[in-house]
Amino acid sequence: MTEPQAGADPSQFTTRAVRDGDDWVINGWKFFSSNARTAEFLIVMVVTDPDVSVYKGTSMFLVPTNTPGVRLERHLGVLGETAEDGMHALIHYDDVRVPASALLGEEGGAFAIAQTRLGGGRIHHAMRTIGMAGKALDMMCERALSRHTAGSRLSEKQFVQGYIADSYAQLTQFRLFVLHTAWSIDKYNDYRRVRKDIAAIKMLIPGVLHDIASRALQVHGALGTSNEMPFTRMVNTSYLLGLADGPTEVHKVTVAKQVLRGYSPSDDLWPTEHLPRRLAAAKEKYAEYLEHEVGNL
Amino acid sequence: MTEPQAGADPSQFTTRAVRDGDDWVINGWKFFSSNARTAEFLIVMVVTDPDVSVYKGTSMFLVPTNTPGVRLERHLGVLGETAEDGMHALIHYDDVRVPASALLGEEGGAFAIAQTRLGGGRIHHAMRTIGMAGKALDMMCERALSRHTAGSRLSEKQFVQGYIADSYAQLTQFRLFVLHTAWSIDKYNDYRRVRKDIAAIKMLIPGVLHDIASRALQVHGALGTSNEMPFTRMVNTSYLLGLADGPTEVHKVTVAKQVLRGYSPSDDLWPTEHLPRRLAAAKEKYAEYLEHEVGNL
Amino acid sequence: MTEPQAGADPSQFTTRAVRDGDDWVINGWKFFSSNARTAEFLIVMVVTDPDVSVYKGTSMFLVPTNTPGVRLERHLGVLGETAEDGMHALIHYDDVRVPASALLGEEGGAFAIAQTRLGGGRIHHAMRTIGMAGKALDMMCERALSRHTAGSRLSEKQFVQGYIADSYAQLTQFRLFVLHTAWSIDKYNDYRRVRKDIAAIKMLIPGVLHDIASRALQVHGALGTSNEMPFTRMVNTSYLLGLADGPTEVHKVTVAKQVLRGYSPSDDLWPTEHLPRRLAAAKEKYAEYLEHEVGNL
Amino acid sequence: MTEPQAGADPSQFTTRAVRDGDDWVINGWKFFSSNARTAEFLIVMVVTDPDVSVYKGTSMFLVPTNTPGVRLERHLGVLGETAEDGMHALIHYDDVRVPASALLGEEGGAFAIAQTRLGGGRIHHAMRTIGMAGKALDMMCERALSRHTAGSRLSEKQFVQGYIADSYAQLTQFRLFVLHTAWSIDKYNDYRRVRKDIAAIKMLIPGVLHDIASRALQVHGALGTSNEMPFTRMVNTSYLLGLADGPTEVHKVTVAKQVLRGYSPSDDLWPTEHLPRRLAAAKEKYAEYLEHEVGNL
Repeated sequence: MTEPQAGADPSQFTTRAVRDGDDWVINGWKFFSSNARTAEFLIVMVVTDPDVSVYKGTSMFLVPTNTPGVRLERHLGVLGETAEDGMHALIHYDDVRVPASALLGEEGGAFAIAQTRLGGGRIHHAMRTIGMAGKALDMMCERALSRHTAGSRLSEKQFVQGYIADSYAQLTQFRLFVLHTAWSIDKYNDYRRVRKDIAAIKMLIPGVLHDIASRALQVHGALGTSNEMPFTRMVNTSYLLGLADGPTEVHKVTVAKQVLRGYSPSDDLWPTEHLPRRLAAAKEKYAEYLEHEVGNL
Repeated sequence: MTEPQAGADPSQFTTRAVRDGDDWVINGWKFFSSNARTAEFLIVMVVTDPDVSVYKGTSMFLVPTNTPGVRLERHLGVLGETAEDGMHALIHYDDVRVPASALLGEEGGAFAIAQTRLGGGRIHHAMRTIGMAGKALDMMCERALSRHTAGSRLSEKQFVQGYIADSYAQLTQFRLFVLHTAWSIDKYNDYRRVRKDIAAIKMLIPGVLHDIASRALQVHGALGTSNEMPFTRMVNTSYLLGLADGPTEVHKVTVAKQVLRGYSPSDDLWPTEHLPRRLAAAKEKYAEYLEHEVGNL
Repeated sequence: MTEPQAGADPSQFTTRAVRDGDDWVINGWKFFSSNARTAEFLIVMVVTDPDVSVYKGTSMFLVPTNTPGVRLERHLGVLGETAEDGMHALIHYDDVRVPASALLGEEGGAFAIAQTRLGGGRIHHAMRTIGMAGKALDMMCERALSRHTAGSRLSEKQFVQGYIADSYAQLTQFRLFVLHTAWSIDKYNDYRRVRKDIAAIKMLIPGVLHDIASRALQVHGALGTSNEMPFTRMVNTSYLLGLADGPTEVHKVTVAKQVLRGYSPSDDLWPTEHLPRRLAAAKEKYAEYLEHEVGNL
Repeated sequence: MTEPQAGADPSQFTTRAVRDGDDWVINGWKFFSSNARTAEFLIVMVVTDPDVSVYKGTSMFLVPTNTPGVRLERHLGVLGETAEDGMHALIHYDDVRVPASALLGEEGGAFAIAQTRLGGGRIHHAMRTIGMAGKALDMMCERALSRHTAGSRLSEKQFVQGYIADSYAQLTQFRLFVLHTAWSIDKYNDYRRVRKDIAAIKMLIPGVLHDIASRALQVHGALGTSNEMPFTRMVNTSYLLGLADGPTEVHKVTVAKQVLRGYSPSDDLWPTEHLPRRLAAAKEKYAEYLEHEVGNL
């Protein structure tokens, strides 16, 4: 889906497929194509009708990797990988011809397919985050009990106690939020009713993993920064999860818009809860009581 | 309970009651006595046996406010109150004589009584925090939809959207944590099993209220800082809740200690999850497979 | 300047003055008028020419408070003040007639006057913040050395040490930034050259005061929340300084825009510092060396 | 210097050198030995007199890497490096015999040598941090101006403007602090006078680099997480700098202790700035004025 010049805003995608007889001919660039190094086929999301909204005019195709015109321009590493180890790629499609049967789902149906995966995919990221962050917390606690420095174990030092307490609270709350949202998904089976919470969870994922993995790394000292512990990879994963399936900023905007749907502007220059207004209303409501009872005190 | 020189550490309390015939005679200072201005009696927690642990040697007394020797030294305001409005006081007990019947509960039983209240009291603070912070979020959203500046409504500006999304996520997670803990309290009816989560919630309270009330205040502009909106009071309350029933730092230490009870030190110089150790264990476990299957590739 | 419906965006001001013979007649609302309770005259900033930019069509007038038509609708308290103590007001101007001589400076010159004050005013707020936050840090340190709890002085506990170290670093850096900017103001005597740093300082003020005063409050325990210490007022002041002379968000945007003036977009799809591009450039530059020297290794 | 079981607390170092005739014989483990893969000699810091303070009883030796008994147990990678690329090592010294001339400086003088380097080394890390973070800010700004999404350039979105403004303010303040401290080092030439600020700077380094590099990474989207941009390495470096030359927590404690040297406990149960005390003092000082002047109002 991603292209070099656009990711979170699909309206800027330019890779096109044009119908030519029974075939489709694809031209353009795709970026961060997953597992490109070893994949036998690529799933590519391209504009098939530029005259309608991108959400209606985009289709998915299955393209065998060895189709003429498919060129892996560069491999990309993430999480500290080198290009040599990287499993993502920048790919150029140069008059790549595929038969009509290569269309995945319906013409124009790419976003319907993608959205189906993304809702589940985002909460799946959350669940993996709970696992990783929980593991980091476990390791932080073991280390705090194992390491002795400057007169006491790390577990007796307030800075470390703070890391543990903050991590426990952050993870416990997040886990309950993910569980509750998963329950809502099952209960309502209606993406619109859970969209707010899925976006909120996606927005929280990077911070939960980042914060807990960072603290665990720090408690392990120099060893924590090394290839002999998984913390650098966990921290780097937290950044990846702040961009994969949409950057955190986009999810924040979604959450805000969804929350705001439950509210209306004030009917007045002043807020509904403006205290002078509330006070006047209370005085009017309790006028009789105030006059007779309080007045007699 | 609080004295001028000590609050969170009861071992430093010095106000004493000494048995004299059928009476008790109380001497010392008490600080932040609630509702002292209007109360007909005071509940005072004093050392009755200095030779045992403070948790065993402290008793509670009911002292009529007009008992000779009770002197309200100063009234204290909180939350921006002046001394004139304040409902707390610094009180001196100067040979205050009360009968044996003034003892509340058993001799030496003050902490048993207090702890009973504190568990419930702390989660009660959390519930009130949910209410206050929820109200602040409601007001923030109404304001964001009502106010137009620099070309658009506040609700369309990312900074404000960020405030709303962050507040929603923070409050939702906290609410689920409080609900879950309340359910645990009911289910287990065992303070020791829920102590970790009660302490974690108490530790989170000030931040939840502070952050959401601060954002709501800011979105209301100058009006938000004024006596015409409740935000200054909410923010000030968040600080009070960071100290009432124990400072946040003490609860952090409690959470850490409780979490650490679930862990053991590593049995080795290196952590249990040290990757070279894990790798060696995996190689040993899968030695046969690695030799026969992978070796043949 | 502020009106009930607008503050940071002057284009929304609606209070008008219309020429009538030798007089001006003012109509509209003004909010947060400082010192209104005791002032003998008001400085009011009103639109005199709605057909040009507000920055050209707004004038300042001196209006004696007892001029017919001037009505103090409500007093407002800030920093925890009640309305009774408040020194700001909501004022209605109802056909308030003033002579031509009431015009302060030139017709349409209100923003030129205001901006002159605001540059200096903002850094003046910064200097007062340094004083207040410095006092809070002093008090935090004295308290940390004076208070003994749970086996040691507060000054020996890492949480408190962290508060002190963080406060010292935050304040020292801020002080140097303010000093450097004040030096730049004197040196360049050119508002445009220092605008970026004045906005950056204004943006930092609330956080510096808030964070340090909050920590000092906390270290003082319950006493810190009371009217007997200045911390609640300091914290409340930090919120006021996040809105007075423009909300923090507006200053953030200004800083960003000023910083961005020093940069250009990349001339390419990829960033200038894209590593493949840099690597290719380096290989070309050092081609001869790489071939002869490295090739022979 | 570092050993597997100890880093920041030298009193726990156990690697020993024992005099044997004209030689020294070294036994023990050293961890994170820099450049071990390619170095011709190692600088090893070992206990030579266990009966005095480690700060007096530790010496440095130059040990040729090929000396019998020196064994490179494992290579370690940092910053995402694999062990194969790593330049640090875990080294075992097994009856490693070196002549008296291998002693670097005086016997027992290791900390005097190390401290000389560490003061300069820590501010040197700060200077490199300014360079790296400044580069990250440059790249963030170029990207913000180059990338168009959801209707505008990134530079016009408040979230991104916030990242730029916060980064500019954080870096500018840090740069001034480092410059001022470097000037103090030159001026006083006395480590004790600048120790507080060197520790404060060391404590700030990881945050400055982490925060600015993280924001720059995020603004670059998926590309920012890849091997084609330097941001992952910068973020990882920030963690390394939170541990190299002492963990941040140790520097925080140092800063606090140094700051506290400038203060004394209160001479009273209440703080020096307790408002009732200040008010009483003021009333006494101005008693005559208050009686005659104010009394007549």
